[in-house]
Amino acid sequence: MTSERETVAIIGLGLIGGSIARDLAAQGMRIAGYDTDPAALDQACEDGIVEDRLEPSLAGVEGADTVILAVPVSATRSVLRVASQRLTGPRLVTDVGSTKRNAVASAAEFGLGEHFVGSHPMAGGHRSGWRAAGTGLFRGARTYLCPTPSTGAEALSRATALWSSLGAHTEVIDAGAHDERVAFTSHLPHAVSSALAVALAKANCKPDDLGPGGRDMLRIAASSPELWTAIMMDNTDAVRDALAAFGAELERLSETLGTGDRSALQSQLSDAQVWLMDNSKS
Amino acid sequence: MTSERETVAIIGLGLIGGSIARDLAAQGMRIAGYDTDPAALDQACEDGIVEDRLEPSLAGVEGADTVILAVPVSATRSVLRVASQRLTGPRLVTDVGSTKRNAVASAAEFGLGEHFVGSHPMAGGHRSGWRAAGTGLFRGARTYLCPTPSTGAEALSRATALWSSLGAHTEVIDAGAHDERVAFTSHLPHAVSSALAVALAKANCKPDDLGPGGRDMLRIAASSPELWTAIMMDNTDAVRDALAAFGAELERLSETLGTGDRSALQSQLSDAQVWLMDNSKS
Repeated sequence: MTSERETVAIIGLGLIGGSIARDLAAQGMRIAGYDTDPAALDQACEDGIVEDRLEPSLAGVEGADTVILAVPVSATRSVLRVASQRLTGPRLVTDVGSTKRNAVASAAEFGLGEHFVGSHPMAGGHRSGWRAAGTGLFRGARTYLCPTPSTGAEALSRATALWSSLGAHTEVIDAGAHDERVAFTSHLPHAVSSALAVALAKANCKPDDLGPGGRDMLRIAASSPELWTAIMMDNTDAVRDALAAFGAELERLSETLGTGDRSALQSQLSDAQVWLMDNSKS
Repeated sequence: MTSERETVAIIGLGLIGGSIARDLAAQGMRIAGYDTDPAALDQACEDGIVEDRLEPSLAGVEGADTVILAVPVSATRSVLRVASQRLTGPRLVTDVGSTKRNAVASAAEFGLGEHFVGSHPMAGGHRSGWRAAGTGLFRGARTYLCPTPSTGAEALSRATALWSSLGAHTEVIDAGAHDERVAFTSHLPHAVSSALAVALAKANCKPDDLGPGGRDMLRIAASSPELWTAIMMDNTDAVRDALAAFGAELERLSETLGTGDRSALQSQLSDAQVWLMDNSKS
């Protein structure tokens, strides 16, 4: 340890990693940071958030109490491999990716099982990069925690404390069950938003033609295609199942319209409204 | 005319009609109002917005310079029929429904062609009723104006001035072309949002399980099922065409996922993002 202050290494200083860095720095922690974009890393240092620059080799990461990977899910495995060669006894290694099965499996494979807890904060936005990062991004957000088969009590407890300190609510869940759930709650909405945008483009509509409801539906389609390609490709089967389930509902709605059965259509629209109303109670 | 002040009769005091009433009353106009819900009408009078109560027979509507129907599209035809029997020479009759072909045809059929301009303000929200109404709802909103084959210059000019005074931007468009366009820009997003909610409900998800992007996509599914059943049923063929076009995009996305072709998936997601970026330029 290079400092008596708690040191957190954050690999990846985009919207998520950068926002974690800002919040933890405000808590007084010492932030060691790395980003593949040197300009982002420079800016994070200039902004006074990152105190220690890590090298591409991640030399220096071994001094951190906690290591947080905030990289695209397609990079998680290779970064875990590099980090695992340097880490001797971290208290917690975690990531923030939107898929968890492969991250948890890779951590276990590289000998980090005891110290690893996969994290998935349900927060973000369609902007990305260090400049999009800000404080308080995780306040009130659900954050899934996915242990490996051998995660120790200290790592899980530190992960819970970390996210609680950022204002998030944690929920421990098996990585496989997580990926199936978020296929519906996160990846499906994203895929639907993107497909809707493309359908509107092909129909020669302009974004300005939309009303407020339509605009709400398209916001997430503006998110990074690179990040979302990696996420969906890391959860292909579950996302396709969710798309099929949604497609069946869409088809049912179209068929109801075709029959002209008003009460059946109203019943379908009411089912959606009733389900949403449960939101306000919970 | 019962007053030297400009008098506007507003039939239907829900979110849209009520918000128009509030804005026009603030401009100093005399508002004559009617609603099938006596409590809403009472409240609109108590709030000092509606000065003259109209009867269910619409007796009194003949004194208005401008008549605005703000009723569900399923009621437009019958209200136009009743109103047409009383109106001798209004300067403008308009409606605010989300579909325009049948409204324009009914107005022409009932002899109101010269004085009628169909309106569709692209504004609203998922809340409904007089209590949801407020000022400024139409500020910045696009409002489509659909003339009949015989709409006179005065009626069109008054409709344009009316919406401009509410802060809206007007666009004159043929009623049939309007209905085909909003099938994509308004009815499709609504149908998709509802189908998504039902698919999530059937997958045993809770609204709280969603991240911010998913929540954005479901907001409009909370809108009134009655109103939206009427809207979709008044534009069945165009909505089904839009659903089919969207379904094809969704299927294409699922197939790309199935092949594991990363660059093809990223290209699809990028098409969506690029189209949305045009928004900021326009």
